[in-house]
Amino acid sequence: MNPIKNDNYQVFFDDSLNILNNILAQKKYSKIFILVDEQTSEHCLPVLQEKLPQLTEFDIIEVPNGEENKTIDFCIGIWRTLLDFEADRNALLINLGGGVVTDMGSFAAATYKRGIDFLQIPTTLLSQVDASVGGKTGIDMDNVKNIIGTFSQPQAVIICTDFLKTLPERELTSGLAEVLKHGIIADVDFFDELTLLNDAKEITVKHIHKSVSIKNKVVLADPFEKNIRKTLNYGHTIGHAIESWSLVNEKNSLLHGEAIAIGMICEAYLAKETNELSEEELEKITNTFIKFFGRYKIRPGIENALLDIMKQDKKNSNGKISFSLPTKIGNCSIDSFIEESLILDSLKYYQSI
Amino acid sequence: MNPIKNDNYQVFFDDSLNILNNILAQKKYSKIFILVDEQTSEHCLPVLQEKLPQLTEFDIIEVPNGEENKTIDFCIGIWRTLLDFEADRNALLINLGGGVVTDMGSFAAATYKRGIDFLQIPTTLLSQVDASVGGKTGIDMDNVKNIIGTFSQPQAVIICTDFLKTLPERELTSGLAEVLKHGIIADVDFFDELTLLNDAKEITVKHIHKSVSIKNKVVLADPFEKNIRKTLNYGHTIGHAIESWSLVNEKNSLLHGEAIAIGMICEAYLAKETNELSEEELEKITNTFIKFFGRYKIRPGIENALLDIMKQDKKNSNGKISFSLPTKIGNCSIDSFIEESLILDSLKYYQSI
Repeated sequence: MNPIKNDNYQVFFDDSLNILNNILAQKKYSKIFILVDEQTSEHCLPVLQEKLPQLTEFDIIEVPNGEENKTIDFCIGIWRTLLDFEADRNALLINLGGGVVTDMGSFAAATYKRGIDFLQIPTTLLSQVDASVGGKTGIDMDNVKNIIGTFSQPQAVIICTDFLKTLPERELTSGLAEVLKHGIIADVDFFDELTLLNDAKEITVKHIHKSVSIKNKVVLADPFEKNIRKTLNYGHTIGHAIESWSLVNEKNSLLHGEAIAIGMICEAYLAKETNELSEEELEKITNTFIKFFGRYKIRPGIENALLDIMKQDKKNSNGKISFSLPTKIGNCSIDSFIEESLILDSLKYYQSI
Repeated sequence: MNPIKNDNYQVFFDDSLNILNNILAQKKYSKIFILVDEQTSEHCLPVLQEKLPQLTEFDIIEVPNGEENKTIDFCIGIWRTLLDFEADRNALLINLGGGVVTDMGSFAAATYKRGIDFLQIPTTLLSQVDASVGGKTGIDMDNVKNIIGTFSQPQAVIICTDFLKTLPERELTSGLAEVLKHGIIADVDFFDELTLLNDAKEITVKHIHKSVSIKNKVVLADPFEKNIRKTLNYGHTIGHAIESWSLVNEKNSLLHGEAIAIGMICEAYLAKETNELSEEELEKITNTFIKFFGRYKIRPGIENALLDIMKQDKKNSNGKISFSLPTKIGNCSIDSFIEESLILDSLKYYQSI
């Protein structure tokens, strides 16, 4: 599978992880750190060590898993560990994990001594198709997602699908949401192909490659999210709000993909009401997400709390809540500012299906 | 006085602050925040408001003054205030203050929602000649200076020398250290001119302009500090260590310029011992700094503690302590890795003068 080229780095598809050896041989790093969470420490680090027995000189930094730990406190822990181990500007941080590890690790690396090199080895489907390209780093604060961060490029991204075998099915399905999103905003044929899958376990490296290619093309055209890159936010205004609410209020909280699957249904409704999306396409989108994700119960009464969270969204402008909405499957518009009553209607639509 | 052009922004010399009005008129910011510390809140904000009575729509964020407060905790306070006041990506942060305010404020702005616009209005001589160009943002952690930060450019820098009238003489003298440094590393005539001053109060806008020009030229040639920009670190390896030590251990701790004045004497000694700097030029440098700064007592017995701090320096590589050393007054080399015994000798040299 060919690597996908971004401006200054490439996304490699390499189940052998040999490419990691090559990169480390080319650059003489003074120290190597591997950031893991509890999960990837147990399930992915042994896989990496088995594939690359020659890689022995590194220190491990471990953070707890879960979005609720993508905080400045754990980021300070990473900075302090780098400092305690005397990491200099020629040190390398390898982020081995899902979105929490890749987002927080890359933020820590991008700001430690004004930036050290980092490599992304995303181990979940979600992080392989989403966090792997785009150079967004970030941590959450006060339950607002990715409110603190930078745009910073990794040295390389390495996608090894063997890591997906270590994932619970629920995590795999969560990742499918972003894959489906890439189809809806940019490629109707790809979306149609995905709707034929029985479940997320049928995802192949070809689907992942296609999904990354779509995202990469969008990101290259607009690295700082001034226009077309905003299409990647489809589903995320409402989805992030539901995710944030769930993180605080539910013991078994929603995964990112589960939340934005709901967001994509609600926002497809907004697109039908305000945009050119047809009734039939709204139904097709709704049915596809229900097929893979089932129905989540948005508790009646929380709608205004969700609106309050949406008002904190990074994408807003002048206090208005902003959306990226499909005009048809395979195409997406940006900068739709929708009034609050209609947003509430979209939640009702979801609750009614 | 002509503005000085960096890549994407300019340094304006404008005692009327009218340029601020022009910038605000050109860009429609959703909200304006002014970051001040206790000192600039009392002494500089009234000056700004008097000069620009039409500027009324802004919120003030105040942090305590002093390098010991350039921490992640106060940075979190800035982020949280921006969030609480619903600052979106079109908000502007104006940093009105010395290096603590401009360094920490620009780091907060560069990372809030992955970067909002910020303007620098440095109010001390030190920040006017040093923090004003170069795009370095940063905070301290565990007494290591600027260990967390980014390279991020402001929208503009506005230098208004009226703010210097609000400064205590000790602060003004501190700033003179960086002005002298620019002479030593790049312009012998400028250095000679400065040695004729009786004290820092005789500094004029022409000296500031010259000093900023020198720094700007260096920074433009090497924005990410790969080579020539390192010359700006002359005096800073030992100076930062003394500054950090003093911050923790002395009630009336050294100001940045006072510390790097000591560092420049010590490092000139290193340059004489290892480099081409002549005995006469070492004396000239030593006498100049003693003239303006007097003698500081480096307490006997702290030398190894200072070495330990130097080992944490961002500029080090592979565990070796790195220096930028003048080869003659007006010229500077980089990447001298000096053994510890000689560093200790340089401290003894300072203690003996």
